[in-house]
Amino acid sequence: MIYEQNDIIQLETRYRANFINSLGGFKSVTLIGTKSVQGNDNLAIFSSLFHLGANPALCGIIIRPNEEKQNTLGNIVTTGFYTINHIAPSFFKKAHQCSAKYEEGVSEFKEVGLEPEYMEGIAAPFVKESHIKFGCELVQKIDIEWNGTYLIIGKIIKIVVPDEYIAVDGFIDLGKAQTITCSGLDSYHSTLPLARLSYAKVDEAVREI
Amino acid sequence: MIYEQNDIIQLETRYRANFINSLGGFKSVTLIGTKSVQGNDNLAIFSSLFHLGANPALCGIIIRPNEEKQNTLGNIVTTGFYTINHIAPSFFKKAHQCSAKYEEGVSEFKEVGLEPEYMEGIAAPFVKESHIKFGCELVQKIDIEWNGTYLIIGKIIKIVVPDEYIAVDGFIDLGKAQTITCSGLDSYHSTLPLARLSYAKVDEAVREI
Repeated sequence: MIYEQNDIIQLETRYRANFINSLGGFKSVTLIGTKSVQGNDNLAIFSSLFHLGANPALCGIIIRPNEEKQNTLGNIVTTGFYTINHIAPSFFKKAHQCSAKYEEGVSEFKEVGLEPEYMEGIAAPFVKESHIKFGCELVQKIDIEWNGTYLIIGKIIKIVVPDEYIAVDGFIDLGKAQTITCSGLDSYHSTLPLARLSYAKVDEAVREI
Repeated sequence: MIYEQNDIIQLETRYRANFINSLGGFKSVTLIGTKSVQGNDNLAIFSSLFHLGANPALCGIIIRPNEEKQNTLGNIVTTGFYTINHIAPSFFKKAHQCSAKYEEGVSEFKEVGLEPEYMEGIAAPFVKESHIKFGCELVQKIDIEWNGTYLIIGKIIKIVVPDEYIAVDGFIDLGKAQTITCSGLDSYHSTLPLARLSYAKVDEAVREI
């Protein structure tokens, strides 16, 4: 029940991967679309997306280095563009299948049965089936020397969200949009709203809680 | 419905904060416990936690700079330790209340009614009420120059997870543990399992989907 540093190190590799990947809680899970300079579409599933800032609108993803190829990292670095697409229950199995190791140049869109969609100003394919999606421009790649990964920082330059999911204050109702979440390496979940809570103030502690 | 770069820039500040914070999908939401060198406990709610690696076990958080004070960043930098604690529906309002701007040196544990719990080897308080929690040691602080935030990289050196939530392959059943997720700046959600999917293989595409 309590795992010390040595216990963690001694876990079997696959067990540890499942365990540590589950530990951080529920995660954003999205499909990242890119296009190679050779003109091939690529689609990959990522659970490391995080919010970096609203003004300028920035997001981050963590990615393993494999830059020489026509894959997500290679395409982002060579073209400077990528799309991030939410996943709904109606196609989460197709999204998961994008993690299979298809040969270089093969389009995951075609293999799993999702439709690429191009929009002005973004040299990367969106996923037509996604209700919520946005296009990013690479602004910085930072080495994470501890494990040889990269932090990719993207500026959000195009956003597609149907009006019906947007509240008067700009909040997007992701439950209504059927966006799913994930845990660990392979577990997918829908959500149920608990509540939106008002801005917390010091003198409201007793009343609010 | 489609927002171009100029539309994003022209959104009203608070509207844009809600909109962009919602856009990345559901997020991990946890309480981060720290202790100042003056001996004061601090507890803060964060939605920027992400998985960085399983071996070594690493995680990242994004944090706004405010290093001079007895707050999460100041305490992590001066002591080198912090705890990350999952949130359950039974205390999510207390967790949210930790975001109020209490005066320096005031313990959010005391103000919102959560119990600090110290464990050997971690100079920071855990949240007793949390079912799943882990202790981290600071290994690197990276400047994100685009918006003046920091990426804090932590090595996971102690993990507390009840056996009943751990599957035979190391996967932690976060739904069973009642871990919640969040979206935007203030919306909290429980989850419903869709499925755990098997490792995706190229030649199983047709069968699996």
